[in-house]
Amino acid sequence: MRVALIGMGSVGRGVLETLVKKDLGIVVTGIADSRSGCMDSTGIDLPSVLSAKKNGRPCGSPDISATDVIKNADYDALIEVTPTNACSGEPAIGYIKTALGRQKHVVTSNKGPIALAYKELRGLAQKNHVALRYEATVAGAIPIMHTLEHGLSGNEIFGLYGVLNGTCNYILTRMAAEGLTYDQALMEAREMGYAEADPTYDVQGIDAAIKLVILANTIWDNGVTLDNVERTGIDLLTADALRLAEEEGCTIRLIAEAIPRKNILRVTPRIIEKNHPLVVEGTLNALTLETDLAKEITLIGKGAGSIETASAIIGDLLFIRDHHVQRT
Amino acid sequence: MRVALIGMGSVGRGVLETLVKKDLGIVVTGIADSRSGCMDSTGIDLPSVLSAKKNGRPCGSPDISATDVIKNADYDALIEVTPTNACSGEPAIGYIKTALGRQKHVVTSNKGPIALAYKELRGLAQKNHVALRYEATVAGAIPIMHTLEHGLSGNEIFGLYGVLNGTCNYILTRMAAEGLTYDQALMEAREMGYAEADPTYDVQGIDAAIKLVILANTIWDNGVTLDNVERTGIDLLTADALRLAEEEGCTIRLIAEAIPRKNILRVTPRIIEKNHPLVVEGTLNALTLETDLAKEITLIGKGAGSIETASAIIGDLLFIRDHHVQRT
Repeated sequence: MRVALIGMGSVGRGVLETLVKKDLGIVVTGIADSRSGCMDSTGIDLPSVLSAKKNGRPCGSPDISATDVIKNADYDALIEVTPTNACSGEPAIGYIKTALGRQKHVVTSNKGPIALAYKELRGLAQKNHVALRYEATVAGAIPIMHTLEHGLSGNEIFGLYGVLNGTCNYILTRMAAEGLTYDQALMEAREMGYAEADPTYDVQGIDAAIKLVILANTIWDNGVTLDNVERTGIDLLTADALRLAEEEGCTIRLIAEAIPRKNILRVTPRIIEKNHPLVVEGTLNALTLETDLAKEITLIGKGAGSIETASAIIGDLLFIRDHHVQRT
Repeated sequence: MRVALIGMGSVGRGVLETLVKKDLGIVVTGIADSRSGCMDSTGIDLPSVLSAKKNGRPCGSPDISATDVIKNADYDALIEVTPTNACSGEPAIGYIKTALGRQKHVVTSNKGPIALAYKELRGLAQKNHVALRYEATVAGAIPIMHTLEHGLSGNEIFGLYGVLNGTCNYILTRMAAEGLTYDQALMEAREMGYAEADPTYDVQGIDAAIKLVILANTIWDNGVTLDNVERTGIDLLTADALRLAEEEGCTIRLIAEAIPRKNILRVTPRIIEKNHPLVVEGTLNALTLETDLAKEITLIGKGAGSIETASAIIGDLLFIRDHHVQRT
């Protein structure tokens, strides 16, 4: 299978490093980032691209744009791993549309397009008889989309409850374990590289809400958007609140929750028993699905990281390789 | 898709009840248990078979055996859900071979054939270009095989750690929570229907070891057998041992563990920190996979139950329906 990759940030590099290490029968014929691009239908020399990027050099020619690669490279699947723009979803939505229109499969880790334009993109993929896969958009390495699509395929999903933001979970874990204030724990999270300089997107629950929208649309096809999510962040939580919860054998976690029959779609700090499977430590993510046959299924794993996210993208690529490309 | 089902115990009935409730495009053309069988290429009336079984009547004619149904019914996939015989694997191994030899897909919940004859059965399936799926053999409703096959398909699995026997986990949970002795907790488990009159198979770790063998062969194809599993049960654990562990913020769980690079393949009671994701309550099962890309992924869910096990079987059937039957 031949692939083109757009975006050479941490996720893009993680994917390329994995393809160098493992012989998966995947040849990369096009690469672009915001500054340059390259194409080679016989396969790009990945170690030299990775080394160029590592040394601050462009990954290809400045005359070749991402759009050039998407329109002209010779590939079966596009890997779209540019940064998320949660407001417009662009330029990623345009990239994905162009590839789908060319009857190319698309694998993305980009939350913007799936949260903002899922129905349109899915329709375009169906019309063109290609796959649109986005395992990496929610909960990093946890194979939640595969689980919904295959493992639990006969089940009706009644609801879901998730710890979908590692930054918030780290802050809450540290507040509970050490009695830190929110500000102290946030500072520590920044020092560890788990929180951005401006943590708004994480601590106010926006990131978790976007992931909840993606899950809800995937499972129930109910057309919900970020505006439909009731949302409270963790930035006003006090050390006292955590301490009181702990005294009762409980703790506090930022829980993303969707229960359509009760019209619940929310991201809020919740008091939760400490031995509940969703109470995970540090930057871990966790997700519980409530179903009719399997009852409750919980998945726990790393929600972020370059190679961890690559795991999700590679899983999508191999599924396309084995179940789509060989058929056509 | 047309299916035949062999075995009308709790799992078989759960599968049929689910097929009655849900419109999955699956028609049952053959059914047999140890006493009788029936065939109808236009589709058997499932509610009347279920009602006959419920009222202690045979599910079909005493002149039609399981082998008759497997050899003569008109089906795409066989659902083999007869009771596990952990010593010989028969008659299930024979049933499965006959179906595979007829180029029929097979879905089974039966641990015996997969633990004892995996390589032979897999070879026969490959030779006949059909699928052999056995999601339900390990950890009930938890879609562990789908996760290995698809969600984590690009990963190397370094090791696995699992709570694979709900009976033992219930006993250990109750010993820890209430300070019960092993005998008291076992009696309670019997009253709840979680333990057999002869609990040997569960409490001495044989059931967990069989599941470990199935997982190891699936992941590493290393030809291990039950004899290769180092095994210690929970029947000699004292209430004091549990209490001492709890005093250190830990507890005891029966952990099935496979780490090929360390030559570890064992089922033993282990002291484990209480906030570890594998520490689940009651009859739950849990499994942690240690991988190169995704790092640690943990799955938690119900390890037994009629409808919960049906969830796994239905997931296998739908995968065959969508990825095998439509191709041929």
